[in-house]
Amino acid sequence: MTDTSGTYAPLTPETLGQRLGNIAAIREKLGNNSSTWTIKEVGDGNLNLVFIVSGDKGSIIVKQALPYVRLVGDSWPLPLRRAWYEYNALIRQAERDPGSVPEIYHFDEGQAIIAMEFLTPHVILRQWLMAGKKHAGLAERLGKFCARTLFRGSDLSMDTAKRKADVRLFAESVELCDITETLVFTDPYFQAERNHHTPGLDPLVAEMRRDIDLKVEAQHMKAKFANNAETMLHGDLHTGSVMVTETETKVIDPEFALYGPMGFDIGMLLANFWMAFFAMPGHLKDAAKRADYQQWILGVTDEIWSVFSAEFSRLWRTERNGILYEKCLFEDQGQPLGSEQALGHYLAHIWQDMLGFAGVEMIRRTLSLAHIAENDLIEDETLRAECEARGLRMARQLVVNRTRIPSMANVLDLARQISERTPV
Amino acid sequence: MTDTSGTYAPLTPETLGQRLGNIAAIREKLGNNSSTWTIKEVGDGNLNLVFIVSGDKGSIIVKQALPYVRLVGDSWPLPLRRAWYEYNALIRQAERDPGSVPEIYHFDEGQAIIAMEFLTPHVILRQWLMAGKKHAGLAERLGKFCARTLFRGSDLSMDTAKRKADVRLFAESVELCDITETLVFTDPYFQAERNHHTPGLDPLVAEMRRDIDLKVEAQHMKAKFANNAETMLHGDLHTGSVMVTETETKVIDPEFALYGPMGFDIGMLLANFWMAFFAMPGHLKDAAKRADYQQWILGVTDEIWSVFSAEFSRLWRTERNGILYEKCLFEDQGQPLGSEQALGHYLAHIWQDMLGFAGVEMIRRTLSLAHIAENDLIEDETLRAECEARGLRMARQLVVNRTRIPSMANVLDLARQISERTPV
Repeated sequence: MTDTSGTYAPLTPETLGQRLGNIAAIREKLGNNSSTWTIKEVGDGNLNLVFIVSGDKGSIIVKQALPYVRLVGDSWPLPLRRAWYEYNALIRQAERDPGSVPEIYHFDEGQAIIAMEFLTPHVILRQWLMAGKKHAGLAERLGKFCARTLFRGSDLSMDTAKRKADVRLFAESVELCDITETLVFTDPYFQAERNHHTPGLDPLVAEMRRDIDLKVEAQHMKAKFANNAETMLHGDLHTGSVMVTETETKVIDPEFALYGPMGFDIGMLLANFWMAFFAMPGHLKDAAKRADYQQWILGVTDEIWSVFSAEFSRLWRTERNGILYEKCLFEDQGQPLGSEQALGHYLAHIWQDMLGFAGVEMIRRTLSLAHIAENDLIEDETLRAECEARGLRMARQLVVNRTRIPSMANVLDLARQISERTPV
Repeated sequence: MTDTSGTYAPLTPETLGQRLGNIAAIREKLGNNSSTWTIKEVGDGNLNLVFIVSGDKGSIIVKQALPYVRLVGDSWPLPLRRAWYEYNALIRQAERDPGSVPEIYHFDEGQAIIAMEFLTPHVILRQWLMAGKKHAGLAERLGKFCARTLFRGSDLSMDTAKRKADVRLFAESVELCDITETLVFTDPYFQAERNHHTPGLDPLVAEMRRDIDLKVEAQHMKAKFANNAETMLHGDLHTGSVMVTETETKVIDPEFALYGPMGFDIGMLLANFWMAFFAMPGHLKDAAKRADYQQWILGVTDEIWSVFSAEFSRLWRTERNGILYEKCLFEDQGQPLGSEQALGHYLAHIWQDMLGFAGVEMIRRTLSLAHIAENDLIEDETLRAECEARGLRMARQLVVNRTRIPSMANVLDLARQISERTPV
């Protein structure tokens, strides 16, 4: 599966067939005659080339890392090695939650190429949300994905020598961690060079950048992110990293994978739903439809958390074979309630971290370099500022009060209150 | 400085001169004629050979790791690589707190040998405490050692790429981490094979092993130890890892070094003073002398924490150049009080962890494999059980109530109350 062939060179639609035409695993998916393959570049990300390659027998995705950030060009170099992290994360996610991620057909470390399953007719969840489309199995799938990958990548479950080896593997990912550490946790809170925001937010942004409580708590979240290697994270689990059809949900793009705190992935995920909730006035003009869809979005986040909690609890009771909270101290002593007590504390700890990371994500997606399409595509700047401001006000509450918000009902009430009452 | 010479073979007093006689750095300290060196084996530890080697010009210590636990023999193998961790920890501690650790003259990775400064007339602090001797600069030195090594080994201070490289380096130390994870955090809480305790403690031990609150909280401390890579720890900072004279204090033996939580080293250190406090009835028979010395011990722990806090705060204000709590968000915005607020939270977090780790250490040193000389040398078993029981009762309070103990005054009151009032 791993192959290192020659000096790195970016693929082009012209060279791809020739360069990958002899790889058996790829021929098997596409057919043997690479000269008949059709190749379409579809990458809209910032960091990679992405091709859909089709042949007689079928289609695949070929993804190749670029040595710099595409949006910015040569001035922001990024290590090709991130394809290695993505590959390693994908095979672990596939093992921990089978069927949750695209299947890998071929990996070339030196060329930073991953050939994988072409998901069709899947679309990016973010597009789906902007279109006001519902999806019955979404929360179930995402909640389980989080529970399974987080639990099974941790010292609750893994052999600790293997976990420590994985911590070492992903701790090499310095440049990608730096992107998150800087763009997510620091830049939004002062006038950093790469920041931008909707002009109408100026007064609120100024207020937030003077807000000591907010800045201190955001830094506490950064300390957790940088130091608490609780489990292998996807690292960039927003609604642009999820692809859906009416019946299927897949998680993609884990190149930012790292060992970090349990609450990070699920916090980032819920944050992106909550931002979509606030952005809806820019996408669904019909008030009744909008109210209904907004209610659906909140319900999805409620369900993601409850599915996550239930699945995490199930794994805690059935697969807790790691070095933490060992059964020899509880179940084996006839004290299963001891492990239930610990589970309650552990879920409360994830809950609080989740709220903090969600708030931090909502702030950075409005004030830092990378924003979300749901807001960017609102052309009316006044309306966009209103939607974004509501998100920022909710985010501030989540970050600062995360240890005192008892349940999802309170979080959703907060979102509704802000949506209905808050002026910009 | 690093040298790998041939297949590993344990040194003996007979072979040492011949094997190390050609090393320039060692000849410089001892004199050139290795046939006149006198060699004395002095190791009393479980894991290593230790020799004092003396020549015309002076003396050095030669420490060599053994491939197994000495006490147990071949049945418990331990990687020689721990000499590598010890070497790496020593050079970092020397840089972060100059003069705090023995100087290294020579390191041979393949032979697992470190040749270093012979500390004389230093004695192990634990002996000093059993003899009822005071030392004016002790708390100052140890408090600063903790503050400087903990602060300067963390993302508060280091370049984060270097810190991540160090996290990777020490995360290889799987077997030594396993010793701490198992013997400190799990074994004491159930009938594990390697446990032993003074028979008079039976009822209390049974009570503690049924104590769900205690066991759950101890496991929370284990989760922090295993996952929160906040800084480079000494990893085994008890009073047997400190050598003192009337005027000098040195810290030795960091072979258990790892990345872990800020509160661990200082918690383990204070725990060992508190256990010595409770053991004093076994060593100082004169009631007035004993009361005075016990008061002195408590005062030392009080001072270690206050020196630690003050030095940590000084470094926070002057050397906070890492990726956490960056100055661009606080001082550079004319908001130094923001960074003071964060410092308060950060110290409170270390305080709570410190109390938890202290309690865990006191319990494992009484119920797990490795005990402390202060208790082991009390021949009267009833008295020994009394001293140990008091330590256990204090430990339980520290572990379970660590988030609700506001200050050192409360901790010391607790120790005094237990010492004066508690029956076994």
